[in-house]
Amino acid sequence: MPEILRGAGVSPGTGYGPVRTIAGAVPEPPAGAEHGGDAAAERETALAALDAVAADLESRGARAAETGNKDGQDVLNAQAMMARDPGLADGVQAKIEEGTAAARAVFEAFGVYREMLAGAGEYLAARVTDLDDVRDRAVARLLGLPMPGVPASDEPFVLVARDLAPADTAVLDPAQVVAFVTEEGGPTSHTAIIARTMGVPAVVALPGATGIADGTPVLVDGTAGTVRPDPSEDEVAAAHAASAARASALEVSTGPGTTRDGHAVPLLANIGGPKDIEAALAAGAEGVGLYRTEFLFLDRSTPPSDAEQEEAYREVLEAFPEGRVVVRTLDAGADKPLAFLPAPGEEPNPALGERGLRMMRRHPDVLAAQLGALARAAAGRTAKLQVMAPMVTDAAEAAGFAAACREAGIEHPGVMIEVPAAALRADDLASEVEFFSIGTNDLTQYACAADRQVGGLAHLQDPWQPAVLDLVAPAAGAGIPCGVCGEAAGDPVLACVLVGLGVTSLSMSAPSLPLVRAALVRHTLDECRQAAAAARAARSAEQARTAARAHLPALATLGL
Amino acid sequence: MPEILRGAGVSPGTGYGPVRTIAGAVPEPPAGAEHGGDAAAERETALAALDAVAADLESRGARAAETGNKDGQDVLNAQAMMARDPGLADGVQAKIEEGTAAARAVFEAFGVYREMLAGAGEYLAARVTDLDDVRDRAVARLLGLPMPGVPASDEPFVLVARDLAPADTAVLDPAQVVAFVTEEGGPTSHTAIIARTMGVPAVVALPGATGIADGTPVLVDGTAGTVRPDPSEDEVAAAHAASAARASALEVSTGPGTTRDGHAVPLLANIGGPKDIEAALAAGAEGVGLYRTEFLFLDRSTPPSDAEQEEAYREVLEAFPEGRVVVRTLDAGADKPLAFLPAPGEEPNPALGERGLRMMRRHPDVLAAQLGALARAAAGRTAKLQVMAPMVTDAAEAAGFAAACREAGIEHPGVMIEVPAAALRADDLASEVEFFSIGTNDLTQYACAADRQVGGLAHLQDPWQPAVLDLVAPAAGAGIPCGVCGEAAGDPVLACVLVGLGVTSLSMSAPSLPLVRAALVRHTLDECRQAAAAARAARSAEQARTAARAHLPALATLGL
Repeated sequence: MPEILRGAGVSPGTGYGPVRTIAGAVPEPPAGAEHGGDAAAERETALAALDAVAADLESRGARAAETGNKDGQDVLNAQAMMARDPGLADGVQAKIEEGTAAARAVFEAFGVYREMLAGAGEYLAARVTDLDDVRDRAVARLLGLPMPGVPASDEPFVLVARDLAPADTAVLDPAQVVAFVTEEGGPTSHTAIIARTMGVPAVVALPGATGIADGTPVLVDGTAGTVRPDPSEDEVAAAHAASAARASALEVSTGPGTTRDGHAVPLLANIGGPKDIEAALAAGAEGVGLYRTEFLFLDRSTPPSDAEQEEAYREVLEAFPEGRVVVRTLDAGADKPLAFLPAPGEEPNPALGERGLRMMRRHPDVLAAQLGALARAAAGRTAKLQVMAPMVTDAAEAAGFAAACREAGIEHPGVMIEVPAAALRADDLASEVEFFSIGTNDLTQYACAADRQVGGLAHLQDPWQPAVLDLVAPAAGAGIPCGVCGEAAGDPVLACVLVGLGVTSLSMSAPSLPLVRAALVRHTLDECRQAAAAARAARSAEQARTAARAHLPALATLGL
Repeated sequence: MPEILRGAGVSPGTGYGPVRTIAGAVPEPPAGAEHGGDAAAERETALAALDAVAADLESRGARAAETGNKDGQDVLNAQAMMARDPGLADGVQAKIEEGTAAARAVFEAFGVYREMLAGAGEYLAARVTDLDDVRDRAVARLLGLPMPGVPASDEPFVLVARDLAPADTAVLDPAQVVAFVTEEGGPTSHTAIIARTMGVPAVVALPGATGIADGTPVLVDGTAGTVRPDPSEDEVAAAHAASAARASALEVSTGPGTTRDGHAVPLLANIGGPKDIEAALAAGAEGVGLYRTEFLFLDRSTPPSDAEQEEAYREVLEAFPEGRVVVRTLDAGADKPLAFLPAPGEEPNPALGERGLRMMRRHPDVLAAQLGALARAAAGRTAKLQVMAPMVTDAAEAAGFAAACREAGIEHPGVMIEVPAAALRADDLASEVEFFSIGTNDLTQYACAADRQVGGLAHLQDPWQPAVLDLVAPAAGAGIPCGVCGEAAGDPVLACVLVGLGVTSLSMSAPSLPLVRAALVRHTLDECRQAAAAARAARSAEQARTAARAHLPALATLGL
């Protein structure tokens, strides 16, 4: 029997099909490559290639929009704009006039932008993949190489790649792709996010994935993080039965979140702006558990006006008249630089720097303006507004934030629990604020000292690590409401464990809601508690997962 | 009464004297400044200035060596080499030939090196300060400005600066400098390290320090982290009495570490190579609690030979025939790049990346060679060799390291506890290895998600944070010997608290040993335990410090 390959499962479920590997990397055109001497003709060739790439990206964007994938279109149009950037064209032209061949000139001109982006912290660095994809498309076109991207296929397939770029995924047909497998990436990579959004199972950080021969049938388990090449018929049949069971269970998954014995656990949505309201309502979210407000502040040279902020908050509050809306105040820092907020200087480790509430110490006016707009947006509305600060470390910071909230007229201040010290001292912080929301992504990153962006450390970025559960427990047991809004809340098995640890609400991306709701309503609070105790008694993430499942017998009815 | 200024105390004790501020920053020569046209003469001027700076640095180095400060000489000679770098001279010349004035040409030529260093991770980035100092000296010379550095003074003084460069501190006379105060820097900054080495009190991260008028008498409390301008006579008298008490107490501080009631706590030295043996022995270290081995691997293009490693380990083992020597295996990563170890790629947050034991997954041969050399060095020697891995996160990693040690013939494997997850799951890890050593610097950095290198977060990098003590407790209570080798062990008050938490040995830089020994022998184990409980019951680092002191009555006899 062929061995099972192990990576990190980042989108649950199982998928079976033949492997289709995305075309290999476009090679770097050799340094020093020169053109024949006709600079004008070479320039035309280069610019025509960039133009063709832009047009192709735009047409892929239009196709994405037709299938309802508006976000995909936005990303592809942004990539098309990169290809059409006049500064880039100038750079290409200058290099061609020095004698450089078109492909090399394009490669080098992109290099300048690449360095700028790569050095600009997490938020922009993640865009490097998008930029490289545009470059590779132009270079491939100029060198007559196969275009990178998803291969054509007549049958559903498992898409395998080193990593996936938005251009690869935006035009994918969910009915054709049964699973994603990538060599790189972590739980917050583009692949992971797109897979969860599409509801397709995914395994990332799997070394050697692209070494599986094209066409090999594989069984992908996005829950366990495993890939089995050439599975037996029985294994495939069992996986199919599980999928069918899940599908029928999800059809009837509606209503407020609750355990089987009636312990209410509100199920909320993570949103990044009013644009996400529709998906949240469609998935039956009872409110918003994490409203990220960075979209109001990014990519602009002046702060948003009070009126603009107020409107963006009001729109969400009005969408959930009987629910709650938990807003996170601006989470900026050296990793998400804002043009109008002078960064505190270059930081060697932005994730450990002056981000979130820490940065607001330098810009109390920005915080005050946001809190004021939130208070005005909530005035006279029935939705319950809760406001929380990111990156809070100790009780003094929590107290300072609560005071700022109350001064602005906000009644329900809270804090994110994402720094280990805050979780450890949850009792101290609980006396200062009204609620907690655990950000399991950052909490795991700091507890295990493992960067979310480093694929090689995916095994340490696992919220199933018993040490992470040890930090959730004191926060959930501190006597005030405690939600979870990290990726962990969208894992149906871990969601039950979190409830067992005392977590009082779960917030996740909308597509994860039905499965979490279905898992929760099939188990009693006591089963969740036993699962939590078993997970904490384990010595590794894998053991914790297995131990918890043993106490959650109805998972099998969901094919989990 | 003038207000008390608060910063971070990084070297204990009190100092009183008039402020002497290091000359302000040398301004950047204006961009576009051009010379009169005689490029050859301008070049001579520029190169002569660089040469004069190099000669001055070398002569300061020679003076430092005369006072026994060999490390200081090494740093100054390295700076002189920067000034004499032929590539730098070429850069200056090229810019002068383009018409740029000498001062601006020097400034810009240094800029190229600066960017390279600043982008090269923690280890090299820290050298940027040294490089800037060389540049500023050359620019000051060319512009006829006062040379940056320590001002002349006829009386002992408190040295105030934005931050201190090695060139500032290497030639300081400890009898003339009664305290350091800086605006920037953290517990691991150059200022902090040099102050502790010199035994001079220091307060860093004190905003507005350079605003205190030159000549103002100030009372500096390096234990509490405070600076009081214009103190009363009584306050100064009390501080002097405390200093005198401490001095006489330290004279009789000898012998093995113990509490007053005879609970033995071996006091060990942190060393960075055989060069530090002498100071460790002179301070009465009972062994080595942290032998950093990076010096064998840095600044070379091939790994050290087995024989070279064996010799470096043997030398230290032979110096402590009746003690123990705890060796930390190579702690490399993107923040301390090694020429012969391909880094795992650029990391957005090197402190959260593939460093320490994590990197050895990619280079098991390097680990095996080091363990083999250690085993051979210990064979037939009486010193007890203990070997520990840095950056261990979970029990599986601990088990893997222990297996590698035993395979190499090393009997006493251990792990550093510096990742919060490892501290939280100390019971799991304890069943895999023989001992723990807590690295409080990194543990604090991760627990509070606050970079050690960011001055603005100094208040969160405090090992007195109750959350950090909450992580020390499970490690110290896991049933195997548990030392501390971070800076916290050298704080005489915190040392008592650590012993109260169950820590079984303390390792620190040699100059800190006498005061820690004196503090410990004046208190019973029960007093230490009460101090520890009081500190953990506090809600902030400052409250923890105060609460602990209340249970350690004999600190006053040491002027602490």
